[in-house]
Amino acid sequence: MLDYCLLGTGGMMPLPKRYLTSLITRYNGSSLLIDCGEGTQIALKASGISPKPIDVICITHFHADHVAGLPGFLLTMGNAERTEDLLIIGPKGVPDVVKSLCVVAQELPFKINYIEITEDTQTVRYKGYVIEAFKVDHRVTCYGYTIRIERAGRFDAVRARTAGIPLEFWSRLQKGEIIEDGDKVYTPDMVLGPDRKGIKLTYCTDSRPVDSIVSAAGDADLFICEGMYGDEELIDKARRKKHMMMSEAANLAKKAGVKELWYTHYSPSVIKPDQYLDAMRGIFPNCKMPRDGWYGTLTFEEGED
Amino acid sequence: MLDYCLLGTGGMMPLPKRYLTSLITRYNGSSLLIDCGEGTQIALKASGISPKPIDVICITHFHADHVAGLPGFLLTMGNAERTEDLLIIGPKGVPDVVKSLCVVAQELPFKINYIEITEDTQTVRYKGYVIEAFKVDHRVTCYGYTIRIERAGRFDAVRARTAGIPLEFWSRLQKGEIIEDGDKVYTPDMVLGPDRKGIKLTYCTDSRPVDSIVSAAGDADLFICEGMYGDEELIDKARRKKHMMMSEAANLAKKAGVKELWYTHYSPSVIKPDQYLDAMRGIFPNCKMPRDGWYGTLTFEEGED
Repeated sequence: MLDYCLLGTGGMMPLPKRYLTSLITRYNGSSLLIDCGEGTQIALKASGISPKPIDVICITHFHADHVAGLPGFLLTMGNAERTEDLLIIGPKGVPDVVKSLCVVAQELPFKINYIEITEDTQTVRYKGYVIEAFKVDHRVTCYGYTIRIERAGRFDAVRARTAGIPLEFWSRLQKGEIIEDGDKVYTPDMVLGPDRKGIKLTYCTDSRPVDSIVSAAGDADLFICEGMYGDEELIDKARRKKHMMMSEAANLAKKAGVKELWYTHYSPSVIKPDQYLDAMRGIFPNCKMPRDGWYGTLTFEEGED
Repeated sequence: MLDYCLLGTGGMMPLPKRYLTSLITRYNGSSLLIDCGEGTQIALKASGISPKPIDVICITHFHADHVAGLPGFLLTMGNAERTEDLLIIGPKGVPDVVKSLCVVAQELPFKINYIEITEDTQTVRYKGYVIEAFKVDHRVTCYGYTIRIERAGRFDAVRARTAGIPLEFWSRLQKGEIIEDGDKVYTPDMVLGPDRKGIKLTYCTDSRPVDSIVSAAGDADLFICEGMYGDEELIDKARRKKHMMMSEAANLAKKAGVKELWYTHYSPSVIKPDQYLDAMRGIFPNCKMPRDGWYGTLTFEEGED
């Protein structure tokens, strides 16, 4: 299962009761953060979540409201006594941007490794997460991220027996190990049925509504998407600033066939996002207007095993 | 008169109910900010104060909790439609540090000018403020700042008449103008009595208690000083990290003969600063343990005129 918490829901600037948009997920003891604007460490603290087990930070783009909180956040991770390497994934240039911001955070007790996204879609596998970056359409290079947890097939004892695999190896093979026994090699697929449906969460902000988002979010269990403005009169502003209307996000959710849509990255001018909820449900019924700190858990369809 | 608001009172990292230490003052239409950690813009917003009229930002030192909020803060000043130049004062290297942080805030609609403090004490006069930087003792180069508002002498009609100054120039001379009339030059001191006591506010964090602070804060109307720890058992930690105990700050206030002491920069481990108030009043009676957003006004002794 995948736990997630939408730490903040704001766009542009942090507000007293609305931190900047950022998501944290947790799977199998490893946490992953997407975006880290000014105040994200406060939002994390308010949610009661530790920064220490964060193994990956994904950055969508280099606007301050998505990345300026990094130096303070990294120092706080250090104060929480993290010593394991941290992986930061982001657009091309991410090492330089992080190093530049960290002019005031130079003594970290852990190493930072980087992966720069250079393709339109690019996949990183790390700590059980399948992280799929996909390019979107903002004023600067910007990526959305799909977080997937894959699920192997069910253990198939008949298959294992038929293949003549010694009983002593069954359990290790089920856990994904490849086993060499003399001149024989046994692989997990020999004891497993076909892959089962995993978990899929897609996160996208800041962008105009483009096809790459529909492709990336297809059939997602949860689609967290920018809803900068609710008032349809602001469409020109959204186009000019390369942001997304709530209605556009609802249409993307519909096209992608996601199970649930959560809005985020509200403009500071949107005081009560809730006021647009009924209208958006007219386009895509299963949508929600989260406030900071909303959380949930995505589980495997056929139960955990 | 000088209005002031202690926007935050925290040290090290911002917390959900305690922003990082930062002070804003306002005098004659011009605002001045000291320090700008992560979240200072949120604290400012929470206090209902506009970032637009801030003409000067003074930085004590380059640790993240005092400066990492700058990129977001400057962008928010830009969003508030500031176009006038901004002056940033700080330790040697301040232009490079600010530019490095602003890798994610490159399109500001105003120009930033810099003054680097290079002496042990250095004075800057700007927008009616007399800003006196003084070197303190931290792990990195760090300055405290005294903010003074000077006050000219009272208008002395007898003197003006005796000096034979034409009546038509009296008002302009009183306002500080120098007037040339043919081959004659009239200066303000010709119509004014001796300078009167002005307003003095001294701000100091992070430092060990050193003599330079006593000299700088002498007779201040308000002394805002670090009180990192209240528990005397933490003195070794304070010495090692080059921070100040509350008791040390109280002793500085006593030696400097200030009128009032406000504590700030509480360690995140200090949950209730108030618990140390009685003990500190035993050393320096007129001390207070502010929370975020405490404000006040310092007025001239003999009324405003």
